[in-house]
Amino acid sequence: MNEKTKPQPPSAAILVIGDEILSGRTKDRNIGFIADTLTDIGIDLEEVRIVADREEAIAAAVLALSERYDFVFTSGGIGPTHDDITADSIARAFGLPIDVDQRAVDLLLPYWKSRNIEPNESRLRMARIPAGARLIPNSVSVAPGFVVGNVFVMAGVPAIMQAMMDEVVKMLPASRPVLSETIEAQRGEGDIAVAAGEVQKAHPDVRIGSYPYHDGARFTTRLVLRSRDAGALAAARAAMDQALRKS
Amino acid sequence: MNEKTKPQPPSAAILVIGDEILSGRTKDRNIGFIADTLTDIGIDLEEVRIVADREEAIAAAVLALSERYDFVFTSGGIGPTHDDITADSIARAFGLPIDVDQRAVDLLLPYWKSRNIEPNESRLRMARIPAGARLIPNSVSVAPGFVVGNVFVMAGVPAIMQAMMDEVVKMLPASRPVLSETIEAQRGEGDIAVAAGEVQKAHPDVRIGSYPYHDGARFTTRLVLRSRDAGALAAARAAMDQALRKS
Repeated sequence: MNEKTKPQPPSAAILVIGDEILSGRTKDRNIGFIADTLTDIGIDLEEVRIVADREEAIAAAVLALSERYDFVFTSGGIGPTHDDITADSIARAFGLPIDVDQRAVDLLLPYWKSRNIEPNESRLRMARIPAGARLIPNSVSVAPGFVVGNVFVMAGVPAIMQAMMDEVVKMLPASRPVLSETIEAQRGEGDIAVAAGEVQKAHPDVRIGSYPYHDGARFTTRLVLRSRDAGALAAARAAMDQALRKS
Repeated sequence: MNEKTKPQPPSAAILVIGDEILSGRTKDRNIGFIADTLTDIGIDLEEVRIVADREEAIAAAVLALSERYDFVFTSGGIGPTHDDITADSIARAFGLPIDVDQRAVDLLLPYWKSRNIEPNESRLRMARIPAGARLIPNSVSVAPGFVVGNVFVMAGVPAIMQAMMDEVVKMLPASRPVLSETIEAQRGEGDIAVAAGEVQKAHPDVRIGSYPYHDGARFTTRLVLRSRDAGALAAARAAMDQALRKS
């Protein structure tokens, strides 16, 4: 993972910040959404981490991931309460000053005014942005996310994170998406493992994943073939279909 | 996170191994299940990582987590196909020899025989266990998980992982579970942030989480108070109820 042998495609990691996910109380829905989005636009998601709402945990993870991957997407911990420490933790991790940002205040004040919301000190925490960061618009509840270097900092509430991700996609380079073919093998993994291994060996440009699952009646297997090259993918699919007919 | 200031409670991490989660094709269901189980028995889940089916990624993550936390739980990558490389990756990470394990073969052969399944080389991959590892029984499909040091290696298929986790729980120390109180604040985070911050400051033994969500009509907030001390928890809850009435 550390040696970047190929310059393309861009690699990415997700960092979810949230005690509520680690306690099991809330089931994460953001990882799957961001993963789907990245696959659609041809960016390889290579790692996900979930850490607690603790400054040293957030800082260590964001620095490690930011060094290793082209892009890092974080979700969670940018609200107004005492446990929302993501912005400050990331600023300190990168050695950046952080304060209430006038651009964010200019977005929030009219929104609050129109709703008769008083701009207290807690609410203004949502305008704390590391110096020099680009803002990520929030079409749901206005308080922005931000970008520091290759790190995209988004909210944890799924509806808000998704609105921010729509904006983030526009900031990312377009790449060549990964194409895939799915084969329902109609039998257990043990029955198709030899065939799948042989086809994988003969088609190194295509990544063949074997995913066993229980279809309600028995264990069966879904084979997923992935490649950025349509011709290579079609050849591997044909070889796999033939191997399955024989096995 | 690195400095263990308190000897109790035990800490834990989860490592999910699976390209299919990173591609977004499969939505993870194991993290939430393991998180719930650990909360029930009083073990603190402090970090989760998801990595691809690549040896260096698996090895680096398992070593880092095994050093940092008391227990590591892995799911995924112990089936019979070419992309199931978890057992070999973990053996190499810890410098352990690995081979087909007679104990696992003795479990699998009668099971296969009763189903007229031929024990081919691919299937025997499921009996590859690092030397000296303790086996984790699998009541669903027999092929065992295993324990190496403080690392519990389980299957990725949710039904099988859950059956293994039932066995793993018996191997773990009983701890003092975390108690929690949930308060529906009935208003947005910005409205309760000052009160929540003050109560948190006055009750440092209780961890107060503030979780905004959209209830279908508006953004509202759930406050979750957590502590291992029932008295401290009750006092914080009373203080929070009072603060919310005033704010």
